[in-house]
Amino acid sequence: MAIELYWGSGSPFAWRVMLTLEVKGLVYESKLLEFSKGEHKAPAYLQLNPRGKVPTLKDGGFVVYESLAMMSYLDRKYPTPPLFGTTAEETGAIWQAISECESYLTSAGDKVVRPLFFGKGLDKVEEIQQAAETIRHELKTLDQRLASANWLVGNAISAADITIFPLIQLILRAATKEAAQPFNLQLLPLATYYPNLAKWVGRIEALPNYQRTYPPHWRA
Amino acid sequence: MAIELYWGSGSPFAWRVMLTLEVKGLVYESKLLEFSKGEHKAPAYLQLNPRGKVPTLKDGGFVVYESLAMMSYLDRKYPTPPLFGTTAEETGAIWQAISECESYLTSAGDKVVRPLFFGKGLDKVEEIQQAAETIRHELKTLDQRLASANWLVGNAISAADITIFPLIQLILRAATKEAAQPFNLQLLPLATYYPNLAKWVGRIEALPNYQRTYPPHWRA
Repeated sequence: MAIELYWGSGSPFAWRVMLTLEVKGLVYESKLLEFSKGEHKAPAYLQLNPRGKVPTLKDGGFVVYESLAMMSYLDRKYPTPPLFGTTAEETGAIWQAISECESYLTSAGDKVVRPLFFGKGLDKVEEIQQAAETIRHELKTLDQRLASANWLVGNAISAADITIFPLIQLILRAATKEAAQPFNLQLLPLATYYPNLAKWVGRIEALPNYQRTYPPHWRA
Repeated sequence: MAIELYWGSGSPFAWRVMLTLEVKGLVYESKLLEFSKGEHKAPAYLQLNPRGKVPTLKDGGFVVYESLAMMSYLDRKYPTPPLFGTTAEETGAIWQAISECESYLTSAGDKVVRPLFFGKGLDKVEEIQQAAETIRHELKTLDQRLASANWLVGNAISAADITIFPLIQLILRAATKEAAQPFNLQLLPLATYYPNLAKWVGRIEALPNYQRTYPPHWRA
Protein backbone atom coordinates (compact mmCIF):
# COMPACT_ATOMS: atom_id res chain seq x y z
CA MET A 1 0.00 0.00 0.00
CA ALA A 2 1.22 3.44 -0.90
CA ILE A 3 2.15 6.15 1.58
CA GLU A 4 -0.55 8.83 1.71
CA LEU A 5 0.22 12.39 2.77
CA TYR A 6 -2.66 14.61 3.78
CA TRP A 7 -1.55 18.21 3.63
CA GLY A 8 -2.56 21.81 3.04
CA SER A 9 -0.97 24.35 0.73
CA GLY A 10 1.29 26.77 2.62
CA SER A 11 1.41 24.84 5.90
CA PRO A 12 5.07 24.85 6.92
CA PHE A 13 4.41 21.72 8.98
CA ALA A 14 3.11 19.85 5.95
CA TRP A 15 5.95 21.18 3.81
CA ARG A 16 8.52 19.64 6.17
CA VAL A 17 7.06 16.21 5.75
CA MET A 18 6.79 16.55 1.99
CA LEU A 19 10.46 17.56 1.82
CA THR A 20 11.31 14.53 3.97
CA LEU A 21 9.48 12.24 1.56
CA GLU A 22 11.18 13.82 -1.45
CA VAL A 23 14.69 13.79 0.05
CA LYS A 24 14.23 10.12 0.84
CA GLY A 25 12.96 9.50 -2.68
CA LEU A 26 9.76 7.88 -1.42
CA VAL A 27 6.72 7.43 -3.60
CA TYR A 28 3.59 8.83 -2.00
CA GLU A 29 0.06 9.77 -2.83
CA SER A 30 -0.61 13.46 -2.35
CA LYS A 31 -3.92 14.24 -0.66
CA LEU A 32 -4.24 18.00 -0.80
CA LEU A 33 -6.95 19.24 1.56
CA GLU A 34 -8.69 22.54 0.84
CA PHE A 35 -8.87 24.54 4.08
CA SER A 36 -11.42 26.89 2.51
CA LYS A 37 -13.78 23.96 1.99
CA GLY A 38 -13.18 22.72 5.55
CA GLU A 39 -11.82 19.42 4.26
CA HIS A 40 -9.52 19.16 7.31
CA LYS A 41 -12.64 19.07 9.50
CA ALA A 42 -14.52 16.47 7.45
CA PRO A 43 -15.54 13.32 9.38
CA ALA A 44 -13.41 10.97 7.28
CA TYR A 45 -10.32 13.10 7.95
CA LEU A 46 -11.10 13.44 11.66
CA GLN A 47 -11.00 9.64 11.78
CA LEU A 48 -7.35 9.85 10.79
CA ASN A 49 -6.50 12.96 12.79
CA PRO A 50 -8.97 13.86 15.54
CA ARG A 51 -7.37 17.30 15.90
CA GLY A 52 -8.37 18.20 12.35
CA LYS A 53 -4.98 19.61 11.48
CA VAL A 54 -2.52 18.98 8.69
CA PRO A 55 -0.37 17.12 7.96
CA THR A 56 -1.23 13.46 8.53
CA LEU A 57 0.59 10.45 7.11
CA LYS A 58 -0.89 7.06 6.40
CA ASP A 59 1.50 4.23 5.58
CA GLY A 60 -0.40 1.00 5.06
CA GLY A 61 -2.37 0.56 8.26
CA PHE A 62 -0.28 3.00 10.30
CA VAL A 63 -1.41 6.58 10.82
CA VAL A 64 0.69 9.32 12.39
CA TYR A 65 0.29 13.07 12.72
CA GLU A 66 2.35 15.95 14.14
CA SER A 67 5.04 16.83 11.64
CA LEU A 68 8.10 15.93 13.73
CA ALA A 69 6.57 12.57 14.62
CA MET A 70 5.93 11.89 10.94
CA MET A 71 9.53 12.77 10.10
CA SER A 72 10.84 10.55 12.94
CA TYR A 73 8.67 7.68 11.77
CA LEU A 74 9.79 8.04 8.15
CA ASP A 75 13.45 8.21 9.15
CA ARG A 76 13.23 5.01 11.15
CA LYS A 77 11.12 3.18 8.57
CA TYR A 78 13.09 4.35 5.53
CA PRO A 79 16.56 5.15 6.88
CA THR A 80 18.27 6.24 3.64
CA PRO A 81 19.50 8.95 3.66
CA PRO A 82 19.52 9.36 7.45
CA LEU A 83 17.99 12.70 8.44
CA PHE A 84 18.44 12.56 12.21
CA GLY A 85 22.19 12.02 12.27
CA THR A 86 24.63 9.18 12.08
CA THR A 87 26.09 9.64 15.57
CA ALA A 88 24.55 10.45 18.96
CA GLU A 89 26.19 13.87 18.86
CA GLU A 90 24.65 14.65 15.47
CA THR A 91 21.27 13.43 16.68
CA GLY A 92 21.53 15.74 19.68
CA ALA A 93 22.59 18.71 17.58
CA ILE A 94 19.82 18.14 15.03
CA TRP A 95 17.11 17.92 17.69
CA GLN A 96 18.58 20.94 19.45
CA ALA A 97 18.24 22.98 16.25
CA ILE A 98 14.70 21.66 15.74
CA SER A 99 13.70 22.41 19.33
CA GLU A 100 15.15 25.91 19.16
CA CYS A 101 13.15 26.50 15.99
CA GLU A 102 9.96 25.26 17.67
CA SER A 103 10.60 27.17 20.90
CA TYR A 104 11.59 30.52 19.42
CA LEU A 105 11.20 30.92 15.67
CA THR A 106 7.81 29.23 15.26
CA SER A 107 5.95 31.33 17.82
CA ALA A 108 7.63 34.58 16.78
CA GLY A 109 6.92 33.73 13.15
CA ASP A 110 3.29 33.14 13.94
CA LYS A 111 2.94 36.57 15.55
CA VAL A 112 4.27 38.24 12.41
CA VAL A 113 2.87 36.00 9.68
CA ARG A 114 -0.77 35.88 10.78
CA PRO A 115 -1.37 39.64 10.88
CA LEU A 116 0.46 40.18 7.59
CA PHE A 117 -1.42 37.41 5.78
CA PHE A 118 -4.87 37.90 7.23
CA GLY A 119 -4.86 41.55 8.31
CA LYS A 120 -6.07 40.71 11.80
CA GLY A 121 -4.04 42.04 14.72
CA LEU A 122 -2.03 44.52 12.64
CA ASP A 123 -2.67 47.06 15.39
CA LYS A 124 -0.59 45.06 17.87
CA VAL A 125 2.44 46.94 16.62
CA GLU A 126 4.64 46.39 19.65
CA GLU A 127 3.99 42.62 19.69
CA ILE A 128 4.78 42.39 15.99
CA GLN A 129 7.96 44.43 16.39
CA GLN A 130 9.11 42.30 19.31
CA ALA A 131 8.44 39.12 17.37
CA ALA A 132 10.31 40.56 14.37
CA GLU A 133 13.26 41.25 16.65
CA THR A 134 13.22 37.62 17.81
CA ILE A 135 13.06 36.46 14.20
CA ARG A 136 16.05 38.63 13.25
CA HIS A 137 18.01 37.28 16.21
CA GLU A 138 17.25 33.67 15.30
CA LEU A 139 18.03 34.23 11.62
CA LYS A 140 21.31 35.88 12.55
CA THR A 141 22.28 32.84 14.63
CA LEU A 142 21.43 30.52 11.75
CA ASP A 143 23.29 32.76 9.31
CA GLN A 144 26.44 32.67 11.45
CA ARG A 145 26.25 28.92 11.64
CA LEU A 146 25.99 28.67 7.88
CA ALA A 147 29.02 30.90 7.34
CA SER A 148 31.29 27.86 7.50
CA ALA A 149 28.89 25.04 6.61
CA ASN A 150 26.49 24.12 3.84
CA TRP A 151 23.97 22.57 6.21
CA LEU A 152 22.89 23.34 9.76
CA VAL A 153 24.29 20.13 11.25
CA GLY A 154 26.89 17.83 9.75
CA ASN A 155 27.87 17.46 6.11
CA ALA A 156 24.49 16.75 4.57
CA ILE A 157 20.93 17.95 4.65
CA SER A 158 19.22 16.85 7.86
CA ALA A 159 15.89 17.14 9.62
CA ALA A 160 17.16 20.42 11.08
CA ASP A 161 17.33 22.06 7.64
CA ILE A 162 14.07 20.50 6.54
CA THR A 163 12.22 21.60 9.68
CA ILE A 164 13.38 25.19 9.64
CA PHE A 165 13.31 25.93 5.90
CA PRO A 166 9.53 26.06 5.31
CA LEU A 167 9.06 28.36 8.28
CA ILE A 168 11.64 30.76 6.92
CA GLN A 169 10.00 30.69 3.50
CA LEU A 170 6.65 31.49 5.16
CA ILE A 171 8.12 34.42 7.09
CA LEU A 172 9.83 35.79 3.98
CA ARG A 173 6.61 35.53 2.00
CA ALA A 174 4.78 37.46 4.71
CA ALA A 175 7.53 40.07 4.55
CA THR A 176 6.73 40.72 0.87
CA LYS A 177 3.15 41.73 1.69
CA GLU A 178 2.21 45.37 1.43
CA ALA A 179 1.07 45.32 5.05
CA ALA A 180 4.67 44.55 6.04
CA GLN A 181 6.11 47.82 4.73
CA PRO A 182 5.35 50.04 7.75
CA PHE A 183 7.09 47.53 10.04
CA ASN A 184 10.47 47.78 8.30
CA LEU A 185 11.15 44.14 9.11
CA GLN A 186 14.70 44.17 7.72
CA LEU A 187 14.46 40.66 6.35
CA LEU A 188 14.46 41.28 2.61
CA PRO A 189 16.42 41.05 0.45
CA LEU A 190 17.57 37.99 2.35
CA ALA A 191 20.97 38.01 0.60
CA THR A 192 21.63 41.50 1.95
CA TYR A 193 20.73 40.84 5.56
CA TYR A 194 21.57 37.13 5.85
CA PRO A 195 23.87 36.14 2.96
CA ASN A 196 24.71 32.66 4.23
CA LEU A 197 21.09 31.88 4.92
CA ALA A 198 20.22 33.04 1.40
CA LYS A 199 22.73 30.59 -0.07
CA TRP A 200 21.32 27.82 2.11
CA VAL A 201 17.81 28.60 0.85
CA GLY A 202 19.18 28.36 -2.68
CA ARG A 203 20.74 24.99 -1.87
CA ILE A 204 17.39 23.58 -0.73
CA GLU A 205 15.57 25.12 -3.68
CA ALA A 206 18.04 23.29 -5.94
CA LEU A 207 17.15 19.87 -4.52
CA PRO A 208 15.65 17.46 -7.05
CA ASN A 209 11.86 17.58 -6.84
CA TYR A 210 11.89 20.71 -4.70
CA GLN A 211 9.35 22.26 -7.04
CA ARG A 212 6.90 19.48 -6.23
CA THR A 213 6.87 20.62 -2.61
CA TYR A 214 6.30 24.32 -3.33
CA PRO A 215 2.89 25.48 -2.03
CA PRO A 216 0.62 25.46 -5.10
CA HIS A 217 -1.37 28.53 -4.12
CA TRP A 218 1.85 30.54 -3.79
CA ARG A 219 2.38 30.21 -7.55
CA ALA A 220 -0.83 32.03 -8.33
CA MET B 1 34.55 12.04 32.09
CA ALA B 2 31.24 12.02 33.89
CA ILE B 3 27.97 13.26 32.46
CA GLU B 4 27.04 16.63 33.96
CA LEU B 5 23.43 17.80 34.18
CA TYR B 6 22.79 21.48 34.76
CA TRP B 7 19.25 21.92 36.00
CA GLY B 8 16.88 23.96 38.11
CA SER B 9 14.48 22.77 40.80
CA GLY B 10 10.91 22.57 39.51
CA SER B 11 11.73 22.93 35.80
CA PRO B 12 9.65 20.26 34.06
CA PHE B 13 12.14 20.35 31.19
CA ALA B 14 15.04 19.54 33.49
CA TRP B 15 12.99 16.88 35.26
CA ARG B 16 12.47 15.02 31.97
CA VAL B 17 16.17 14.72 31.40
CA MET B 18 16.85 13.66 34.95
CA LEU B 19 14.23 10.93 34.66
CA THR B 20 15.84 9.83 31.39
CA LEU B 21 19.22 9.54 33.10
CA GLU B 22 17.72 7.60 36.03
CA VAL B 23 15.65 5.22 33.87
CA LYS B 24 18.78 4.43 31.88
CA GLY B 25 20.74 3.93 35.10
CA LEU B 26 23.38 6.44 34.08
CA VAL B 27 25.76 7.99 36.57
CA TYR B 28 25.80 11.78 36.36
CA GLU B 29 26.95 14.78 38.26
CA SER B 30 24.10 16.98 39.37
CA LYS B 31 24.72 20.70 38.89
CA LEU B 32 21.77 22.42 40.52
CA LEU B 33 21.55 26.06 39.47
CA GLU B 34 19.82 28.55 41.76
CA PHE B 35 17.51 30.71 39.66
CA SER B 36 17.17 33.17 42.54
CA LYS B 37 20.92 33.79 42.43
CA GLY B 38 20.85 34.14 38.64
CA GLU B 39 23.22 31.22 38.22
CA HIS B 40 21.59 30.35 34.88
CA LYS B 41 22.75 33.77 33.58
CA ALA B 42 26.33 33.52 34.85
CA PRO B 43 29.03 33.86 32.16
CA ALA B 44 30.39 30.34 32.69
CA TYR B 45 26.93 28.85 32.19
CA LEU B 46 26.21 31.03 29.16
CA GLN B 47 29.30 29.50 27.59
CA LEU B 48 27.52 26.15 27.74
CA ASN B 49 24.05 27.43 26.93
CA PRO B 50 23.91 30.90 25.35
CA ARG B 51 20.16 31.07 25.95
CA GLY B 52 20.70 30.93 29.72
CA LYS B 53 18.01 28.31 30.25
CA VAL B 54 17.94 24.95 31.97
CA PRO B 55 18.60 22.14 31.43
CA THR B 56 21.97 21.61 29.74
CA LEU B 57 23.88 18.36 29.46
CA LYS B 58 27.64 17.97 29.16
CA ASP B 59 28.99 14.55 28.28
CA GLY B 60 32.76 14.65 27.98
CA GLY B 61 33.38 17.34 25.38
CA PHE B 62 29.85 17.33 23.99
CA VAL B 63 27.29 19.90 25.13
CA VAL B 64 23.59 19.82 24.27
CA TYR B 65 20.59 21.77 25.48
CA GLU B 66 16.83 21.74 24.81
CA SER B 67 15.32 18.88 26.80
CA LEU B 68 14.07 16.76 23.90
CA ALA B 69 17.43 17.04 22.17
CA MET B 70 19.16 15.91 25.36
CA MET B 71 16.82 12.92 25.63
CA SER B 72 17.37 12.03 21.95
CA TYR B 73 21.12 12.26 22.40
CA LEU B 74 21.09 10.10 25.53
CA ASP B 75 18.89 7.50 23.87
CA ARG B 76 21.21 7.16 20.92
CA LYS B 77 24.39 7.20 23.02
CA TYR B 78 23.09 4.89 25.75
CA PRO B 79 20.40 2.81 24.04
CA THR B 80 19.37 0.59 26.97
CA PRO B 81 16.49 0.64 27.70
CA PRO B 82 15.26 2.20 24.46
CA LEU B 83 13.02 5.19 25.18
CA PHE B 84 12.07 6.18 21.64
CA GLY B 85 10.62 2.86 20.54
CA THR B 86 11.84 -0.38 19.07
CA THR B 87 9.93 -0.09 15.78
CA ALA B 88 9.26 2.80 13.40
CA GLU B 89 5.60 2.74 14.41
CA GLU B 90 6.49 3.06 18.10
CA THR B 91 8.92 5.85 17.32
CA GLY B 92 6.18 7.68 15.43
CA ALA B 93 3.62 7.18 18.21
CA ILE B 94 6.07 8.32 20.91
CA TRP B 95 7.00 11.50 19.05
CA GLN B 96 3.35 12.12 18.27
CA ALA B 97 2.53 12.01 22.00
CA ILE B 98 5.52 14.26 22.76
CA SER B 99 4.58 16.75 20.04
CA GLU B 100 0.97 16.85 21.19
CA CYS B 101 2.20 17.58 24.71
CA GLU B 102 4.44 20.38 23.45
CA SER B 103 1.80 21.83 21.13
CA TYR B 104 -1.17 21.78 23.49
CA LEU B 105 -0.45 20.85 27.10
CA THR B 106 2.75 22.86 27.60
CA SER B 107 1.34 26.21 26.50
CA ALA B 108 -1.98 25.70 28.30
CA GLY B 109 -0.11 24.57 31.40
CA ASP B 110 2.03 27.68 31.30
CA LYS B 111 -1.04 29.94 31.21
CA VAL B 112 -2.37 28.30 34.36
CA VAL B 113 0.81 27.56 36.29
CA ARG B 114 2.47 30.97 36.10
CA PRO B 115 -0.39 33.01 37.55
CA LEU B 116 -1.02 30.45 40.29
CA PHE B 117 2.64 30.23 41.29
CA PHE B 118 3.64 33.86 40.96
CA GLY B 119 0.34 35.71 41.38
CA LYS B 120 0.86 37.71 38.20
CA GLY B 121 -1.94 37.68 35.62
CA LEU B 122 -4.54 36.16 37.94
CA ASP B 123 -6.97 38.76 36.60
CA LYS B 124 -6.89 37.15 33.13
CA VAL B 125 -9.70 34.89 34.28
CA GLU B 126 -11.01 33.97 30.86
CA GLU B 127 -7.57 33.05 29.54
CA ILE B 128 -6.91 30.88 32.60
CA GLN B 129 -10.30 29.18 32.29
CA GLN B 130 -9.76 28.48 28.61
CA ALA B 131 -6.31 27.04 29.30
CA ALA B 132 -7.77 24.91 32.11
CA GLU B 133 -10.36 23.57 29.66
CA THR B 134 -7.55 22.61 27.25
CA ILE B 135 -5.68 20.93 30.10
CA ARG B 136 -8.77 18.92 31.09
CA HIS B 137 -9.30 17.86 27.48
CA GLU B 138 -5.69 16.73 27.10
CA LEU B 139 -5.72 14.90 30.44
CA LYS B 140 -8.96 13.15 29.49
CA THR B 141 -7.37 11.94 26.26
CA LEU B 142 -4.35 10.64 28.16
CA ASP B 143 -6.60 9.04 30.78
CA GLN B 144 -8.59 7.18 28.11
CA ARG B 145 -5.40 5.93 26.55
CA LEU B 146 -4.20 4.62 29.91
CA ALA B 147 -7.46 2.77 30.55
CA SER B 148 -6.09 -0.25 28.74
CA ALA B 149 -2.33 0.27 29.03
CA ASN B 150 0.26 0.88 31.71
CA TRP B 151 2.28 3.27 29.55
CA LEU B 152 1.38 5.82 26.91
CA VAL B 153 3.02 3.94 24.03
CA GLY B 154 3.99 0.26 23.93
CA ASN B 155 4.62 -2.07 26.84
CA ALA B 156 7.26 -0.11 28.72
CA ILE B 157 8.01 3.38 29.89
CA SER B 158 9.07 5.59 27.00
CA ALA B 159 10.10 9.15 26.29
CA ALA B 160 6.38 9.95 25.92
CA ASP B 161 5.70 9.15 29.59
CA ILE B 162 8.89 10.85 30.72
CA THR B 163 8.19 14.02 28.74
CA ILE B 164 4.60 14.46 29.87
CA PHE B 165 4.87 13.41 33.53
CA PRO B 166 6.78 16.41 34.96
CA LEU B 167 4.43 18.82 33.26
CA ILE B 168 1.42 17.09 34.81
CA GLN B 169 3.09 17.16 38.23
CA LEU B 170 3.70 20.88 37.81
CA ILE B 171 0.10 21.55 36.82
CA LEU B 172 -1.20 19.49 39.74
CA ARG B 173 1.05 21.33 42.16
CA ALA B 174 -0.24 24.66 40.87
CA ALA B 175 -3.78 23.33 41.37
CA THR B 176 -3.08 22.87 45.10
CA LYS B 177 -2.33 26.56 45.56
CA GLU B 178 -4.84 28.71 47.38
CA ALA B 179 -5.04 31.01 44.36
CA ALA B 180 -6.42 28.06 42.37
CA GLN B 181 -9.57 27.67 44.46
CA PRO B 182 -11.73 30.33 42.76
CA PHE B 183 -11.02 28.73 39.38
CA ASN B 184 -12.51 25.34 40.26
CA LEU B 185 -10.00 23.64 37.99
CA GLN B 186 -11.49 20.15 38.46
CA LEU B 187 -8.12 18.45 38.40
CA LEU B 188 -7.78 17.28 42.00
CA PRO B 189 -8.10 14.74 43.42
CA LEU B 190 -6.55 13.27 40.29
CA ALA B 191 -7.87 9.78 41.11
CA THR B 192 -11.43 11.14 41.07
CA TYR B 193 -11.23 12.97 37.77
CA TYR B 194 -8.60 10.92 35.94
CA PRO B 195 -8.28 7.51 37.62
CA ASN B 196 -6.07 5.90 34.98
CA LEU B 197 -3.77 8.87 34.89
CA ALA B 198 -3.51 8.74 38.68
CA LYS B 199 -2.38 5.10 38.51
CA TRP B 200 0.14 6.00 35.83
CA VAL B 201 1.53 8.79 38.03
CA GLY B 202 1.85 6.20 40.82
CA ARG B 203 3.70 3.86 38.47
CA ILE B 204 6.28 6.55 37.66
CA GLU B 205 6.59 7.56 41.31
CA ALA B 206 7.39 3.92 42.10
CA LEU B 207 10.38 3.85 39.72
CA PRO B 208 13.72 3.19 41.41
CA ASN B 209 15.48 6.50 42.14
CA TYR B 210 12.33 8.52 41.39
CA GLN B 211 12.84 10.36 44.65
CA ARG B 212 16.20 11.63 43.44
CA THR B 213 14.44 13.47 40.63
CA TYR B 214 11.79 15.13 42.78
CA PRO B 215 12.23 18.94 42.84
CA PRO B 216 14.08 19.66 46.09
CA HIS B 217 12.28 22.93 46.82
CA TRP B 218 8.90 21.16 46.56
CA ARG B 219 9.76 19.17 49.68
CA ALA B 220 10.04 22.26 51.82
